[in-house]
This record gives sequence, C-alpha cells and structure tokens, in this order.
Amino acid sequence: MRATYIYGAGDVRVITAPDPKLIESTDAVVRITRACVCGSDLHPFHSMPADADARPIGHEFIGVVEELGKDVATLKVGDFVIAPFAYSDGTCEFCLEGLQTSCIHGGYWGNGGITGGQAEAVRVPFADGTLVKVPGTVDESQYAGLLTLSDVYATGWHAAYKARIAPGQTVTVIGDGAVGLLAVLSAKQMGAERIILMGRHKARTDLGIHFGATDVVAERGEEGIALVRELTGGSGSHAVLEAVGFMPAYEQALGVVRAGGVISRVGVPQYENAPVGRGSLFGKNVGLVGGVAPARAYIEQLLPAVLDGTVNPGLVFDQTVKLEQTPDGYTAMDERTALKVMVDPT
Amino acid sequence: MRATYIYGAGDVRVITAPDPKLIESTDAVVRITRACVCGSDLHPFHSMPADADARPIGHEFIGVVEELGKDVATLKVGDFVIAPFAYSDGTCEFCLEGLQTSCIHGGYWGNGGITGGQAEAVRVPFADGTLVKVPGTVDESQYAGLLTLSDVYATGWHAAYKARIAPGQTVTVIGDGAVGLLAVLSAKQMGAERIILMGRHKARTDLGIHFGATDVVAERGEEGIALVRELTGGSGSHAVLEAVGFMPAYEQALGVVRAGGVISRVGVPQYENAPVGRGSLFGKNVGLVGGVAPARAYIEQLLPAVLDGTVNPGLVFDQTVKLEQTPDGYTAMDERTALKVMVDPT
Repeated sequence: MRATYIYGAGDVRVITAPDPKLIESTDAVVRITRACVCGSDLHPFHSMPADADARPIGHEFIGVVEELGKDVATLKVGDFVIAPFAYSDGTCEFCLEGLQTSCIHGGYWGNGGITGGQAEAVRVPFADGTLVKVPGTVDESQYAGLLTLSDVYATGWHAAYKARIAPGQTVTVIGDGAVGLLAVLSAKQMGAERIILMGRHKARTDLGIHFGATDVVAERGEEGIALVRELTGGSGSHAVLEAVGFMPAYEQALGVVRAGGVISRVGVPQYENAPVGRGSLFGKNVGLVGGVAPARAYIEQLLPAVLDGTVNPGLVFDQTVKLEQTPDGYTAMDERTALKVMVDPT
Repeated sequence: MRATYIYGAGDVRVITAPDPKLIESTDAVVRITRACVCGSDLHPFHSMPADADARPIGHEFIGVVEELGKDVATLKVGDFVIAPFAYSDGTCEFCLEGLQTSCIHGGYWGNGGITGGQAEAVRVPFADGTLVKVPGTVDESQYAGLLTLSDVYATGWHAAYKARIAPGQTVTVIGDGAVGLLAVLSAKQMGAERIILMGRHKARTDLGIHFGATDVVAERGEEGIALVRELTGGSGSHAVLEAVGFMPAYEQALGVVRAGGVISRVGVPQYENAPVGRGSLFGKNVGLVGGVAPARAYIEQLLPAVLDGTVNPGLVFDQTVKLEQTPDGYTAMDERTALKVMVDPT
C-alpha cells in the first residue's frame, strides 16, 4: 500500500509500505476513507532530527472495516468506523473510567509497529475497544464532520468538558486552530454565555464566530490580556481553554482567568515548567486541568449531532489533497494557507 | 491592650498596643477568647528580615463581640463569633461565589492597619461579612473545635472539596501538620474509602488514623512514592491533598497521583515554577487545584458537627499558652514539640 512517512524536519514522503495484516485476534484492518493532517504533526515536521528513523505518520482517520480477527465481537466487515487518535483495549480500569489515553495496553498510531493514518489502510489493535461504528449509510458529505471526531472536535470538547463549563459562564478560548475553534463550538454547546476567541487569522476567527464566539481579540500578550479583562468587567474569564501549547499562551491564560476559575489545556505543552505558585494559580484559586484528550470517550456522545447536522465541525477543513499530495498538505498547514487539510487515499 | 508582634526572624514579642476602636460603621470590635499559632506564621518566623517594620501577627481567633458599628445588621454585642483567617465584605461578586479570599475589599489580619489575632482584642472590618455567630451557649470545652474553623479545618476541607472527593475513592494526604490531619478528616467525611497519610511524626499520624487514615507512609521521596503506588495496586491515588507547600511535597504528589486524578494544594507554595507539562500533569490528565482557602465559605456548613461532637477537629491542639507566652508557642511549633499551640489571652 501507499503510506505517509516522516523522515525528518520538513521531509514527509508517501512511500510504498507493506500491506497491513491481522496479527492479534483482536485486530481489525481498516481501509481508510479519509485522513487528515494535525497541528501536532507539525511538531516533528519542525523538529525531527534528520538522523532519526523514518516513521509512519497520521493519527486521524475514518474508514471501512476490511478484515477482522476472530475475537472481535462488535464489528462486521464493511462497517464504517471512526478511529480516535489513540488505540485502547476498552476493558482496563482507565478505559472504563473514560480515560482511554491512559489505557494500560493502548498506544498511538505510527508508534511501536502500528502504522499511521495518512495511508491507504491500517492495522487497528483492540478493534472492539478502539473503533466506533457509524450507524446507517454514510454519505461523502458527512466525511469531514465524522473525521473531526477522531481528534480535533473531541479534543476541543475535552477542553470544555474538563473545565466543567456551566451555562451562563464566560469562556475565553486561546488559539484559532481547528482545536480552538471546536473548543468554541463545545463551549457553546455546554451553554457558555460569552465566548471570547483570542486569535488573529480573520478567516479562522470568522469561523469561530459561526461556531459561537461572541467576541474576538486579535491582540496578544499584555495588550490581549487587558482587552479580555475589559470585556469581562475587570474580573476575567471563568474558564480559559488553551489550545496552543506554547508558553505565551499559558501566560495569556494566567492573565485572563478569573479568581476561582480554571485553565483547561489541550494544546500539547512545549514546556515542562510553568508558574503555578502564589502569584499565578494558588493565590487566586485557579485550577489547571486538561491533557491528552481521550477522544474515544466522547465519540458516541458527539456523533448524533454531527450525523443529523445540528453541528458542523467539518467546516474546519478548508483543503483536501490526494494521498500522494500529503506533503503539500503539511506545507499548506505549516504556512497557514490551510486551516486543516483532509487527505483522500481512495 | 496586649498584642503579639513579629519583629524579625525568631523575634516574636507581646507588647502593649493601642486598644482597637471602631473606625468604619461596618466594623466590630471583638474581645478574643482564644487564638492560635499557625504553621504559616512560621514562615516569617524563619525568614522575616530584621530591618522590616514590626507588625501584628495571628490570623485565627474566636471571641465575643464587644462593640458594633451602626451599620452592622446581623450581630449583637455579646455574640460569640468565629473569624476566618481573611476578612471579607460578604457582598462582592467573589464573596457571593464563596471565594471570600478574593473579596474585592477584603484582606488579611495583621496587614494594612488591621491588627492581628494573637491579642486581647481586634477590630474586625465588614463584621457582617466576616464573622460567623455561634448559636446557643458556648462551653470552654468547645473552644478548640470552634477555633479550627478559623483556618486549619476549613483549609483541610478546602483541599478535599476542591479535589471533589467522591465516595469510594483513594486519597493520599501529604503532610501531618494540623491542616493535613484535618484534610484526612474532611476526606473521610466526604466518603473516601482509603486514605493514605504521608507523614513521619508518630503522634501526629496516630491522630491521623483517629481522623480516618487507613494507611500511614512515613517514607518520603522515591521510596514513599513507591510505597503509595504499591498500596494502590500500581495506579496511584485518585486525589492527592498537598498540605505542605515545599517542592518535594509537590514532586511527591506528582509521583503518587493516578492518571486522571487531581492534586489539590493548600500548603502555601514556597516556589513559583513547577513541572506541569507532558511528563507531569498533561500526559496523565492530572488536574492541579486548590489555593488559599476561603474559610468563610465553609464555617456555617462545618459548624453543626463540631458543636454536636460528631467530629472533634480540636484534637489538633496539644498545647495551650497564655498570651504573654505566645513566643514560647512559636518555639514549640518550630521545634515540633507541639503540633498546634492555642493562645489564651483572657
């Protein structure tokens, strides 16, 4: 089959790789219908050392079950499925608690002998635990929405869910990438009254307004903080959803959060140490929550409104490439000429 | 009147100070029945520069209303009252949300012209907002329990409350000071099934067992972490209540917390930066909550069980000194010959 591998910073190639095969009796092989490029794929695209081993890449995909191990109980060949960005056994104590990203036997696509999602097909471990079957017949117009459940919508939802957003609250979302925009949508669904989106790419923040943002603050740093505080009567935001991962975004979150409020992070932190003492979190009783989103925990819950068109998270896709053009998709996202690129391997 | 002032590290004196008087129409003057020395009083006792201005000290007290400003509506002269360790107006948006430590007009005893609690009397700003009247007749045997509501019990409760401890959970408490021990009691009241107390002073951990600890781990650092993980089947603790405030306690919390769990801090952090990235909080979806406890928010709720003897948080007091001996109380707590010292200014 054809599959995308990363060889080093700036070096993504579509190569011929072995066809995926069943290994464990709990495996499935899934023929991929659509995949996509993630903001987090840009981290190795920026920084992977040239002497590191090439590895398969891509962790978001939807597709059709092609083969099933004999112990897979809940799926049939031909089922249309959504894969979350981590696989998980579905039975360990963490999976049962809805924290599938901490599954004792779980892992991530493209690691440990599991191939990636930007490919024609993939072997899926623990198919019963990992995959979510989409009921009924799936129309091509639904692909974009379904694909967001693999990661970006589920991750935006995780940010809002962990912040325990309550109706009437003021929420500030930092970051106008796909996750930030879908955190806006999630906050709106949870009843946030005011949603301030901090971002400076107009096409993106316009989409954020479509998803429910009531205010846009393009300024950053102290200037942005001052504007958000002004919008919130000086007190700051009950919840801050941080969908970037760089230290300035964390500092911005500290600046705009209300005493007693919460900062919920889903942008993978590109730092390890950060201010959390009396002058930042402790003195104001600000909570710090979030983490790697257990997308699997949310897919069934979010699926109906995507299928019936109540919400349209698929609007975050603004470009589609064929599998062979996947490297162009990386470049487009890196240069911000695309918000989010869909990959069509069919 | 006689009042305790701190002049520098190791230098606490009881001096003659002006009698407190009503200044604002919302003030009360309270004649102090009992006060006490707090673990946090030891911070300036260790580190206050000799050239700093002497200041009144003590922030925990119970007493009797002696004078009232004309705009105080809810209290009468002669009422027996509990003062939380911060005063607050009771009417601002933060007070109404139960975060009185962020009161817009509030502050702390011993600062900004307000005298301290280790004294014969004190002027109380915003008496309606700040003070909680104890119903009925108060017996001297109840003083210890009531006095813990001023800070240590309310602070232990805050740790457990912010961690949202649910019945059946495993909770680890770090620190066997008065706050840690009362965090054990609070976790027990909230239904924690297993409560692991990390502390190494046997008299204190024995009291922790009395309050509900099911296990005691005296070891610290990596060894202590390994023991707690063993006690929790390798997975760690749902909630960690950190009642120390030094970095090793934070690191211990990171080591024993379960994926998806929460670290709730009430020990005032003696650091500003700490690990919060992918390798510590983010990767495991661990939340970091807590802060300066709004004791005022909890006093009414905790009072009935203290009055009727259902709980006996006053057991944390193991020494009483007259006001003139307050400096000895500091020394006893500093040298750990006392767990918590009550001050009797009557």
